[in-house]
Amino acid sequence: MQYPSKTIEAAVEELSRLPGIGRKTALRLALHLLREPETAAENLGSAIVSLRRNTRYCTSCGNISDSDTCAICADLRRDASLLCVVEDCKDVIAIENTNQFKGRYHVLGGLIDPLHGIGPSHLNLDSLFVRLDDGDCRELIFAFSATIEGDTTAFFISRKIENKSIRISNIARGIPVGSDLEFTDEVTLARSFLNRVEFMTEKEGAG
Amino acid sequence: MQYPSKTIEAAVEELSRLPGIGRKTALRLALHLLREPETAAENLGSAIVSLRRNTRYCTSCGNISDSDTCAICADLRRDASLLCVVEDCKDVIAIENTNQFKGRYHVLGGLIDPLHGIGPSHLNLDSLFVRLDDGDCRELIFAFSATIEGDTTAFFISRKIENKSIRISNIARGIPVGSDLEFTDEVTLARSFLNRVEFMTEKEGAG
Repeated sequence: MQYPSKTIEAAVEELSRLPGIGRKTALRLALHLLREPETAAENLGSAIVSLRRNTRYCTSCGNISDSDTCAICADLRRDASLLCVVEDCKDVIAIENTNQFKGRYHVLGGLIDPLHGIGPSHLNLDSLFVRLDDGDCRELIFAFSATIEGDTTAFFISRKIENKSIRISNIARGIPVGSDLEFTDEVTLARSFLNRVEFMTEKEGAG
Repeated sequence: MQYPSKTIEAAVEELSRLPGIGRKTALRLALHLLREPETAAENLGSAIVSLRRNTRYCTSCGNISDSDTCAICADLRRDASLLCVVEDCKDVIAIENTNQFKGRYHVLGGLIDPLHGIGPSHLNLDSLFVRLDDGDCRELIFAFSATIEGDTTAFFISRKIENKSIRISNIARGIPVGSDLEFTDEVTLARSFLNRVEFMTEKEGAG
């Protein structure tokens, strides 16, 4: 593509490196920024630079944080006996938005995925086992995607800690709330039969 | 939504101001930048800031440019007798990519659109009439979208210059190359009959 200006070309080049943004979208974004006041581009530019410079990972749970200990780990009202293990910090945000879980998190930064060369040593697992050794945790909850990688990771962790007196649970797999039974895939439907719960005792709150 | 860090929140806030980028996509982009090397975020940030600081509009045609005169206006090999009027610089890029037009451009920065309060005075029209008075231009080509706004703008300009001895043309409307006749809408199909061209004389090159 021929661009009217080297500056535009450089911006399109950088924007199109972002996931899901091709050259046409990048150009649209660049032209949008040109139409906006100069402060808009400057605020965006400095927010992006600051993003990488000013965020770090919580030394306790591995979540993204502004300081060495993240807001959730620093919050003494959170139940330290419940530990929810998740793949990455997007999952923490998703779970926090439900307002259903009042325990703490441990962010692995990925899932075991041998096909892509990701083994247990690539994940934030050592610090998880250190935390479990500390003895505060009574229940470990796996909140992974319902994929082979999620199941593998859950299985790996469960085998490592089977000698400890920690309850291990998995978030429920079943028919999504609001979805049609007839359009649910067979595996999910089968799982929802296996894991059926007593009528009226289904928990409305948790954590 | 609750974010793990104020820095992330600020970045999501700024990214989600971009057109077509919601909060979820903005978060995905921010987390992607966190995983990349620090230089990636810095290059992107500085490209965005530089975008607004270092681009200007060509004083002759109104196209985006790194200098006061854009590369196309500065190129003496381009035919000054052919002037193509377009809505914005995205159209210049699209036409340049066809390699079919070797004349010059005039970028209006919009189309006349009374419903959205955009009149002729909001567009880069005065400098167009000045350029036409200079006398170099022998043919004016309207290359607007096939919309009411495009037709209105073309009609407005054509009325303003009807006393000048300048040929006025419009890019062809018809069935897009490669598309099925049966799925073409009636208006386009009707227009393609009205504007039919002699068989085998259809121009392969132009400009």
